[in-house]
Amino acid sequence: MTTSLQERPARPAVGVVIGDPAGIGPEVIAKAWLAGQLHAACRPVLIGSAAAMARALGFIGKTAQINVLTDPATVPAGIVDRVDTLDILDTGRMDGEPLPLGEDTAVGGRVSAEWLDEADQLARSGQFAATVMGPISTGSMKMAGTLDKVVSVTPGESYLLLVSGPLRVAHLTDHMALRDVCEIISRDLVALTLRKLDAVMREWGIPKPRIVVAGLNPHAMGREDSEQIAPAVAQARAEGIDATGPMSPDTVFRQCIEGRFDIVLAMYHDQGHIAIKTWGFSGNSAIILGPPYTHLSVAHGTAFDIVGKNIADHTMMQSAIITGAYLAAGRGFPSEK
Amino acid sequence: MTTSLQERPARPAVGVVIGDPAGIGPEVIAKAWLAGQLHAACRPVLIGSAAAMARALGFIGKTAQINVLTDPATVPAGIVDRVDTLDILDTGRMDGEPLPLGEDTAVGGRVSAEWLDEADQLARSGQFAATVMGPISTGSMKMAGTLDKVVSVTPGESYLLLVSGPLRVAHLTDHMALRDVCEIISRDLVALTLRKLDAVMREWGIPKPRIVVAGLNPHAMGREDSEQIAPAVAQARAEGIDATGPMSPDTVFRQCIEGRFDIVLAMYHDQGHIAIKTWGFSGNSAIILGPPYTHLSVAHGTAFDIVGKNIADHTMMQSAIITGAYLAAGRGFPSEK
Repeated sequence: MTTSLQERPARPAVGVVIGDPAGIGPEVIAKAWLAGQLHAACRPVLIGSAAAMARALGFIGKTAQINVLTDPATVPAGIVDRVDTLDILDTGRMDGEPLPLGEDTAVGGRVSAEWLDEADQLARSGQFAATVMGPISTGSMKMAGTLDKVVSVTPGESYLLLVSGPLRVAHLTDHMALRDVCEIISRDLVALTLRKLDAVMREWGIPKPRIVVAGLNPHAMGREDSEQIAPAVAQARAEGIDATGPMSPDTVFRQCIEGRFDIVLAMYHDQGHIAIKTWGFSGNSAIILGPPYTHLSVAHGTAFDIVGKNIADHTMMQSAIITGAYLAAGRGFPSEK
Repeated sequence: MTTSLQERPARPAVGVVIGDPAGIGPEVIAKAWLAGQLHAACRPVLIGSAAAMARALGFIGKTAQINVLTDPATVPAGIVDRVDTLDILDTGRMDGEPLPLGEDTAVGGRVSAEWLDEADQLARSGQFAATVMGPISTGSMKMAGTLDKVVSVTPGESYLLLVSGPLRVAHLTDHMALRDVCEIISRDLVALTLRKLDAVMREWGIPKPRIVVAGLNPHAMGREDSEQIAPAVAQARAEGIDATGPMSPDTVFRQCIEGRFDIVLAMYHDQGHIAIKTWGFSGNSAIILGPPYTHLSVAHGTAFDIVGKNIADHTMMQSAIITGAYLAAGRGFPSEK
């Protein structure tokens, strides 16, 4: 479903789900909004509880107008679209007492899922070009039985992509035992993933993405590297994809950091996560490839231990929203300052 | 074979094998020597070809005396022990024409191995407290049939330890296919390794080393993590070793960087190598645990493409020699400037 750049608004509407109201989601979102960088890149719209946002403004010692939209049909047309006014869709899912801070609750898990659903529907109907998921609590969602509403990662269907400045890593597999990773790697799966990754990168505005594939074994010198990964890369190249590899897993990430590639395709969770988290952490964001729109998740959790203390860092949330806006607008990844 | 600190010289004798004469070994060693930092930490002695070192001095545009010792029995007593004089044991292994630069040769492979042997014998007889292996060429050593002279890494017997400032990583396994890593991990192997690591760190002058063990699977939540690694850590703790883990592989390295642990025990080659090489590369050194003395290897290769051009960076060589000297003297790891 490629949209030409001409048809896309320069400032796309981005839905930001506030996450579990007991966590730091509302306060990092309020901070990110009032920091004033978001509106240059997009028209942000929050999805969640206006009361939770009002409470979060108190935590951070700031005042702002809150423009509450109660009907999804008015989104995003009804937004004020200004830095000093939080635009929020609040469909009244969370009536009654505010949730206790820093605690898992079934209510928190229920509303987190309902808000994700609302954002998903608005994105699928074209009202949002991208969505960003604030920090949810798996504990709360287990209590509510709603964990299935979080987009999961399934090899061949959906993928986790982590971004930390120039280091961008898509993962062939996610929470999978290393034994199973060795079994699942196949020429077809790698080739299919390269096709999907190439297509989405082009959609995001990177005209001929340079994709480098990490090997599985030390120095990419194992059976899976030569029998499965190498033929998949050759096949992708034959199809016109600028794929390279398999490259030694211990050098491939620095090659990307130094700008020789646009993205690394890692074979397993820790290949990419060790690189991203050891290199640096601030400014990371997580993209989930799978939904028919650009879907991101902030790269931190609810941080229950520091909720309400005005010490939570909002830069990852800001980075996730701006990255989503850029990609949905076909502007490529935002460059680092 | 613990030696009390009182018996150890503050400036131990460190044997530095110059590596393949066709590579950058001689010139980075000459640069490191003349940079003037080595002698405060140790009494360095080169092992190799005086002619190759004279040629290297020409490459870097420096002059220095060369004090040639021809008999191993005179090492290290016969050294001049000054920054302006290269002390070298040259037993005449490489007579005749100088080797062509940047090329594999059987002669280069033969002498690399013979020099390693000489250094090993002097270390085993107590003349060197530590040895550092300059960059050798596996191509040359294959041609000479001498690759077996390089200390290899065998789980349970010998281990590769990489050091990059505060990030220190020992590897349970090295060049092993990921499938085989999953098979070989056992409670006994991990417990044995923790014992060895704890003992050698104490010998190096870290009184109660804080060792953190990386898990095998994402978030350390797999079968091997709970059934093999966790019981091994518990056993080590029962024996008085300050071991922690298994910890999620994607967060464990940053914990070490931030000073909460002295060393990470990684389960496989790329866990540690991705962390070390993605985080930073300058100043790394490699220690091989196994020989009965402190044995290091410089963390780069022969760099045949830049030999003789005076652009090779000597800081890794300098770091390896000083690290070896500190550890052999029981002074712990040198702290970063």
